[in-house]
Formats: sequence, structure tokens, C-alpha cells
Amino acid sequence: MTYSSFIPPQRTLMGPGPSDVSQQVLSALARPTIGHLDPLFVGMMDEVKSLLQYAFQTDNEMTIALSAPGSAGMEACFVNLITPDDTVVVCQNGVFGSRMAENVRRIGATLVLVEGEWGRAVDPASLDDALSQHPEAAFVAFVHAETSTGARSDAKVLCEIAQKYHCLTIVDAVTSLGGCELKVDEWGIDAIYSGSQKCLSCVPGISPISFSKQAVDVIKNRDVPIQSWFLDQSLVMGYWSGNGKRAYHHTAPVNSLYALHEALLSLKNEGLENAWQRHQNMHDLLAKGLAELGLDFVVPENERLAQLNTVYIPDGVDDAKVRNFLLNEYNLEIGAGLGQFAGKAWRIGLMGYGARKENIALCLAALNEAISSTRQTL
Amino acid sequence: MTYSSFIPPQRTLMGPGPSDVSQQVLSALARPTIGHLDPLFVGMMDEVKSLLQYAFQTDNEMTIALSAPGSAGMEACFVNLITPDDTVVVCQNGVFGSRMAENVRRIGATLVLVEGEWGRAVDPASLDDALSQHPEAAFVAFVHAETSTGARSDAKVLCEIAQKYHCLTIVDAVTSLGGCELKVDEWGIDAIYSGSQKCLSCVPGISPISFSKQAVDVIKNRDVPIQSWFLDQSLVMGYWSGNGKRAYHHTAPVNSLYALHEALLSLKNEGLENAWQRHQNMHDLLAKGLAELGLDFVVPENERLAQLNTVYIPDGVDDAKVRNFLLNEYNLEIGAGLGQFAGKAWRIGLMGYGARKENIALCLAALNEAISSTRQTL
Repeated sequence: MTYSSFIPPQRTLMGPGPSDVSQQVLSALARPTIGHLDPLFVGMMDEVKSLLQYAFQTDNEMTIALSAPGSAGMEACFVNLITPDDTVVVCQNGVFGSRMAENVRRIGATLVLVEGEWGRAVDPASLDDALSQHPEAAFVAFVHAETSTGARSDAKVLCEIAQKYHCLTIVDAVTSLGGCELKVDEWGIDAIYSGSQKCLSCVPGISPISFSKQAVDVIKNRDVPIQSWFLDQSLVMGYWSGNGKRAYHHTAPVNSLYALHEALLSLKNEGLENAWQRHQNMHDLLAKGLAELGLDFVVPENERLAQLNTVYIPDGVDDAKVRNFLLNEYNLEIGAGLGQFAGKAWRIGLMGYGARKENIALCLAALNEAISSTRQTL
Repeated sequence: MTYSSFIPPQRTLMGPGPSDVSQQVLSALARPTIGHLDPLFVGMMDEVKSLLQYAFQTDNEMTIALSAPGSAGMEACFVNLITPDDTVVVCQNGVFGSRMAENVRRIGATLVLVEGEWGRAVDPASLDDALSQHPEAAFVAFVHAETSTGARSDAKVLCEIAQKYHCLTIVDAVTSLGGCELKVDEWGIDAIYSGSQKCLSCVPGISPISFSKQAVDVIKNRDVPIQSWFLDQSLVMGYWSGNGKRAYHHTAPVNSLYALHEALLSLKNEGLENAWQRHQNMHDLLAKGLAELGLDFVVPENERLAQLNTVYIPDGVDDAKVRNFLLNEYNLEIGAGLGQFAGKAWRIGLMGYGARKENIALCLAALNEAISSTRQTL
């Protein structure tokens, strides 16, 4: 077997992530690697931390970029905060809520599952009911932006309910960070994780996370040791600490952090509110076009994510044929359905740098042609 | 606070990693991001797997690039194979052996520690003794190339002893893969992990790992669930499987895998044995020069790693001043001592693309000047 360099085509990425990465971020990624304890790199890490605090709208000291994908960020939140003696209420309205529940089960903690309809926001009343029936619960976990369905839950209201019952909150912001309103401190979120490859439009592989002071206290005061050494935030804190000497924990993904720095800089320069508004504006444009193609949204209008548009596959249209057509004829990627929506829906992402008019025009034109042509061949 | 793009200087990286990354690999890294389930990307993952099998000298089907640094690779090996009922013999002759022991403790398994001298290879007789006293032991773990000391242990002999006692082996090859002889199948290693940023000269953040058929059987047949969802290799297998449809697990670090593909391609083109020999040749050159500077090696000659040269800091020479001088005057990074050798030794890496004559010439000249000038200022 012979091998040669892998030269990928230039795709337009309108799936559920990774999203389009700008040339600016790719150029940052390819800058010369320096040591992970180099004073210049340490200074850059401090800036990444400040920029993440801005993106999350938090003053949390414990705000870092975890050296692994979002699913590891999820796990970091659960395994650091939760012990087998805890009771955790998980709101589940899609694949990623199910994964949260799986995290709780694997820790051996008590799971209270609030099951919601896929494609809908988490129902605040159901959470309130569950908490009133489980006064022993200490944590509430939910997904802000369900990447599997395109539904946006009201994180502010869900946090208020959790606080009423004196629970700490764990929030999945993988698809929300940078793409829609998210205010960690104002809403009182205690642990939050995201991914680099969604609305930040950075390369995949990094998970921004943040813990409130109260959450950090829980981590510091736990009496059951954390099983994971790699995800043990009491150790990672020493590595990301801005105060004096860094304690070596692991080798940071130097170049990926260059890229994250650049992506966060773009967000800061655009302005967070402007970025949220751009996602909404682009969504409105796409939604209008999709309606003209006769496609129906899975999620009711007031619960929709601007950055992830889930539409039903029309009757008589072959899912795989359409997606292959888009990929092969137009170098355009849209997402397949996941979980309950596998084979039933498409997920069209408008994330970060990908939320641009030219992408929408391309997507609508190509999708129109793909649907017509695959219908004819059936 | 205002921010601008981070433009790193061009350093020469001769520490314990990350090592120098070639322009060829950096260019691969910056190619356009495509989807992690794109058929073209899936095809590239298959090539990465084959190239890793070559680098590890194994036919193991379960050979993948873990989406996180080497310390997560270590943890993946331990948490997948070991349950709280197991007894694990860990050979400890440096920082990374200690970390292995910490992994065993956190799992709650029984740890038998074979303590060796730092800066020396693991003593095969001590391992044999420990195993004869602990017939209940099912696993032996050791570090092939101790990054904290520069010592190379005889992995072949240690594996033979483990097999005599019917133990499976877990081997740390973070600093050995690509830099010195390593033959996973021939030596009968059952679980092995490495890092992208050492002798492969790829960017940091990825951990190549491989499991033997016997190890995979242990994972498949365990009755205690693995606590970590992210590191659960029974799930990751479905994502990296070459057989038909990939099961979504997490979003792969697409661009970092482009870079790993390119770095492994360089290794394949050079030839594994040639790469090992180049490291040895460059080591001989460096060792001669270091001796001329009057610097003494920590590790006896026949136990030295060619790719990581640990030398005592001469009396009357200020550690930090020398390293700062090298960094500031010559953009040259060498490594500080770690653990027992903190402040007492330097670690000079000759890893992968960094194992070149021009780097050695630079290092010797700059080190000579640094030692002289900091001696004068004391």
C-alpha cells in the first residue's frame, strides 16, 4: 500500500459541526509550534482565558480550554462535581441529554431523568416537578442548544428553577457559545462546557469550560477522589493558573490553542451581541428560503436555534442520495439526522464563520436541485 | 484590555517535547477543515490507522489516534483494562511511572509498586521478584522511555517476564515511538500509548494507542462498566472501525489528524529503522559535544535514550539563567529537570524532525556561551 499527502477539498460545512474555519484561523493554526511552558505561550493562554470569559460572559477564575473535544468537556463537568452519593436531575430532550444521563450512571450517582420531547425545548414545569419530588437532588443538568434536534431551551429560566431548589447547574453549551445569547454569571450557571468547532469556528478538538466559585469549592472539598487524572480540574487549575509558576500537568495542544485564540479574537472584534444577531439574521434568511422549498422545521419557531436548522426530509426524497449529491456536486456538507431523527431530518448549520449569505444562497440552490433530481430518479 | 493575533517566534525545540514540527506537517495542519464523517476524511483515518500500525510494528486491529494528549492515552489504557478487583504491578523509575501508579490508585485496584532508581532502566530482576511474590497480579505496566529522566528500559525483556507470569502488559511509549526500536507484536505488548509531539514531530494533542487482541477481549468481557464515556474504547472502536458504517462517538480533531497523517507519512518514507538510526547518530554527535563542554549524563551509556539527553547542571551554574539565555538570545528551548531532577539536570531533546545536525551545532554553541556567561555573572 502506498500513501501520499492528504489534500482535502474545499468543502462548505453546513452540518452540525465542524463549521467552516476561516483562513485567518487556519493561518494561526499553522504558526510555528513553541513549547507549552514557553513564557510567550503562557501569556497567550492567559489571553485565551480572558477571551473565553468574555465569550461565556463570566468572571469565573476557573475558565479554561480543555485539551480534548466537547464530550470530554461534558465528562469533566460531571466527574469533577458529582460523587456516587449525589442525586442529579438530567433534562433529556435529545442525544446529548442522554449522554449526560450516561455520565451520571457511570459515576454511580442517582439519576433523575426528566424526559422531554425531542425537537422541543426542555419544559420548565417538568423540571420544577422533578425537583419538588426529589429534594435530595444537588445538581441539575441540561443542554442549552441540543445539537441533535436544533432546539434551544430557556437556560435562564431553568437555572432559576434549579436555584430555587438550591441545586448547582451543569449546562451543555456546545452549540450555543458564540451563536446565541448565553450569560453564565447573570443566569447563575455553575459548570458549563462547549466545543471549539461550532459557533466559534475553530478547528475541532478543544472544549472551553468554566466553573463558578461555588462549583470550584465543591471540587476542592470533595472527599471521594476523582477517578480521572486527565480530567481532574484540581490539577488542571495549577496548569492554567495565572498566579506565578505553572504546574506541569500535560502538554497543551499548542497549535490548536493558537487557532482558538484567533477565533476568539474574531468574536471579540465582531462583538458578542453582533455575532448573536448575525446568526439570527442568517437564520431568518435561510428559514425563508427553506419554506419556499416546502421544507418544514422540526422545532417550533420560538424554540429554534438560529445556528442549527432541523427540517424534515420530504416524503419520497432519499436522505443519503441528497446528501451525497450536495457533497459530490457542490462540496457542500449538511448534517444527517441523529438518534430519533436519523433518516427523518436534515440538520443545516449556520455556525460562526459559516453563517454567511453566500453559504445560504449556495445551500438553497443546491438543495433545490438535489431534491428535484433525486425525486426524479426514485 | 486589547488583544491582537498571537505571532509566535521561530523557536528551535530541543526540550522533552513538543519537538520541532516541519513546515510540511504545519502545512498539512492548515488545510481546509472537512467534516469528521466525510467519506474522504474517513478514508484518511483508515490510512492513519495503517501508518500507526507500521510505526508501532503491529497488526493490532485496535490501533487508533486518541483525540487527546498522551496522558489521556495512558488513562485510556488503564481504565479500559483494569477493574477495582485487579492487581497491577507498576515499575516506577520516574515521573511517568508515578503517574501510572496514580492511575491504578484512582481506579481502586491493588497496586504493587516496583520502585527503581531515577535515571536508570527498570531492573528486570526486581519485576521478576515482585511477580513471584504476587501471583494474583494480572497486569504489568512500565515506561519504555522515561521522559523525566532519559532512561530507556528493556521493553522486550520486561514483556517476557510479564508473560512468564501470564500478565498483560501496558507500556508507555510516549517518547519512544519513532525514536528507538519498538516492536509491539514481536515483544508481545498488550496496550501501548504514545504522543504526537515527541519523535513523530506532529503538533501536540493526539495520542496514538494500540491494544492486542487479548487486551480487546478483556475490554469486551469486562463486567464492571468503564467510568469514562470519552475514553471507553468499546465505543471508540465503532468510530474507528474500518468495517462499514462509522458510529458517531465524538468529533475527531480533523486538522490535527491531517498533521499526524503527514508526520506518519514522513516516518514511513524515511523508514522506521532509518529513523531509529538517525536518532542514534545524532545522539552520538550531541553526546560527544556535551562531553567536550564537560557535561555529565545522568543515565549510564547503555540505558540512555538517544532522543532525550539528560545531563547534570554543572556546579555554580544557574539553571534558569542558562535556559532563559538560550531562549532569549538563541530562540532555543531545552528542558528543565522534572521531579527528582528539578533544578539538577537539563533535558535535551533530539526528537523526530528535531534530530538534525544544525540543531546540535546550535545547541552546543549556545550552551557553551550560556554556561560561560552565566558563570561569570554569578
